[in-house]
Amino acid sequence: MTSGRRPIARTAEGVVEILDQTELPHRTTFLRLTSVEAAAEAIATMRVRGAPLIGATAAYGMMLAADDDSSDGAIEWAHARLLATRPTAINLRWALDRMRARLLAVAPADRFGVATTEADAIVEEDVAICSAIGDHGLAIFEAILATKPAGSRLNVLTHCNAGRLAAVEWGTATAPIYKAHAAGLPIHVFVDETRPRNQGASLTAWELGERGVPHTVIADNAGGHLMQHAQVDVVIVGTDRTTARGDVCNKIGTYLKALAARDNGVPFYVALPSPTIDFTVADGVAEIPIEERGGEEVSHLGGVTTDGRFETIRIVPEGTAVANPAFDVTPARLVTGLLTERGVIAPNRAALVAAFPEAARAAGLAPGGTR
Amino acid sequence: MTSGRRPIARTAEGVVEILDQTELPHRTTFLRLTSVEAAAEAIATMRVRGAPLIGATAAYGMMLAADDDSSDGAIEWAHARLLATRPTAINLRWALDRMRARLLAVAPADRFGVATTEADAIVEEDVAICSAIGDHGLAIFEAILATKPAGSRLNVLTHCNAGRLAAVEWGTATAPIYKAHAAGLPIHVFVDETRPRNQGASLTAWELGERGVPHTVIADNAGGHLMQHAQVDVVIVGTDRTTARGDVCNKIGTYLKALAARDNGVPFYVALPSPTIDFTVADGVAEIPIEERGGEEVSHLGGVTTDGRFETIRIVPEGTAVANPAFDVTPARLVTGLLTERGVIAPNRAALVAAFPEAARAAGLAPGGTR
Repeated sequence: MTSGRRPIARTAEGVVEILDQTELPHRTTFLRLTSVEAAAEAIATMRVRGAPLIGATAAYGMMLAADDDSSDGAIEWAHARLLATRPTAINLRWALDRMRARLLAVAPADRFGVATTEADAIVEEDVAICSAIGDHGLAIFEAILATKPAGSRLNVLTHCNAGRLAAVEWGTATAPIYKAHAAGLPIHVFVDETRPRNQGASLTAWELGERGVPHTVIADNAGGHLMQHAQVDVVIVGTDRTTARGDVCNKIGTYLKALAARDNGVPFYVALPSPTIDFTVADGVAEIPIEERGGEEVSHLGGVTTDGRFETIRIVPEGTAVANPAFDVTPARLVTGLLTERGVIAPNRAALVAAFPEAARAAGLAPGGTR
Repeated sequence: MTSGRRPIARTAEGVVEILDQTELPHRTTFLRLTSVEAAAEAIATMRVRGAPLIGATAAYGMMLAADDDSSDGAIEWAHARLLATRPTAINLRWALDRMRARLLAVAPADRFGVATTEADAIVEEDVAICSAIGDHGLAIFEAILATKPAGSRLNVLTHCNAGRLAAVEWGTATAPIYKAHAAGLPIHVFVDETRPRNQGASLTAWELGERGVPHTVIADNAGGHLMQHAQVDVVIVGTDRTTARGDVCNKIGTYLKALAARDNGVPFYVALPSPTIDFTVADGVAEIPIEERGGEEVSHLGGVTTDGRFETIRIVPEGTAVANPAFDVTPARLVTGLLTERGVIAPNRAALVAAFPEAARAAGLAPGGTR
């Protein structure tokens, strides 16, 4: 990412290079992935994270599988292995299903070449989608800013990292932020720390800083207070899975910010590439499995000491029980609009089906129908 | 606190001993305060914290002042010095005003003795108040548990530390928890980490562990999700200042939990000794000054390494801007009940004035009147 390097790239030799996000913001380390297992490990340990980037990594993982063994069995095994890495993000399944279908349709000898082309296509589609999300979001930001006194800055609050680091370029929630900054809008971003893994403090702050976007890191607890005092003009977050009726599953704590936004009349937008829409699910709270991650993510924390050493420290009493649900669901009723590559969609089934009829049909939903 | 030692005590020689809470949960260190300046430093740096304990420490600070120089000027100076330590908790002003009035009413030669008696009285009154809060809260807990299937545990969620460590004994929000545990109720507590200073992870977890109360530490972001999934039966928190109409100013992030409780039909109680009621203030959001603390509380964190060393680490990119509001205000409309030493009071002006007519009158409010 330094000098604009992407967090994932395929080399001419057919291996995959990723930025190891577990070392940010303190170290910038690129790793080479040369096997399905390495790709799976990178996803499971969150060296790569964020729904679109997980999808891209899984797609390249299928390419690495086809390179190693292009038999039907190997393709199926790679699909299963990669799918088991993270349970919540729907892009993972979407990318894997797309790759598997494409590969099984051609002869084994052709599979590595097809996989390379298809994974590259997934990546470039993601870039185009995020850019379009940014354009639609920029229009929203401009409209909000137009309602403020001249000379005001636009204060955006975001949670977790739905940024360049979560996608390939632009990011989802950050795409409008980068486009607004590039267009000269006086934009400022409140960055939720996003415990327990601190993707806001470590990733969003890092990437906004790299691009020179003014920002302030806050504890996750602070957003409600800032909204009560009119310090936030708009909230924009990403999503790992969006249901057919517009419920949004995103990083744990998103729901609390949505409640605060509603209570204070602050618009709450969710930026999403359409592959995160899961038309097979309606009630997000009842139906989406929520990943429970290891307790050490809450009990321990890594960082650098004043003399530059990396240390991991324990911040709870020894032996304390910890729970660590990684996502929560924000009901559609709290969402102002779903910001997609096809514009802002109202968070309800009819609007989503109308905007993405082909995906809805593939899931057995017809425009105007119910399921 | 080990073996039940209080977090503040006066020795026979007239000095004050405090438990240094900045070292918890990793070290148990008691410090001796022998001057107003030492007492002020202990409050400002949060070696002691929590509204009742701040009041107790300030009261003993006035005793130390009278011991050093019992002139009117010295008493006034000590009042001003101690009042300047923290802006939000109303107990601080309440204890200081009470001590000053008592001391200025007697001859300088008598002031140290009177101060000792008065500060001791403030402390013992606090213990009695917290015990009464615990009794009233226990009845609420029993009633909630009675609505659950036999054999269920009662899941309580609390934010920050309104515990024994925030008071002298019992705590405020923890008093019903300790009484319920002692009475054999199957109680379990979800402990919000409470960023940025982690009073939940470091203090509440420590004191519940010491008393053997089952508990689980969670990130502040997790509470809404747990409530959506019926894992929380009741929320109980403390308060640093309660307004005449029942708005509650407490640790940053409390408001977000109140919103989630309301959205999910979970009762939200605030435990408070009546001295935290400020009858001179009505609209908490508009009128209560919110302390902005140093950014390093967000950007840096202390703990122990696996080999037992204490380290402080930075967890944001170097030079990142940080904001750190320390409290927020939960509007009365989100509060189920105010749990006081005189029972559960509805969060509105009429009920508060009726329950505490003498304090209301002292602030110029008459029962049934407006202000």
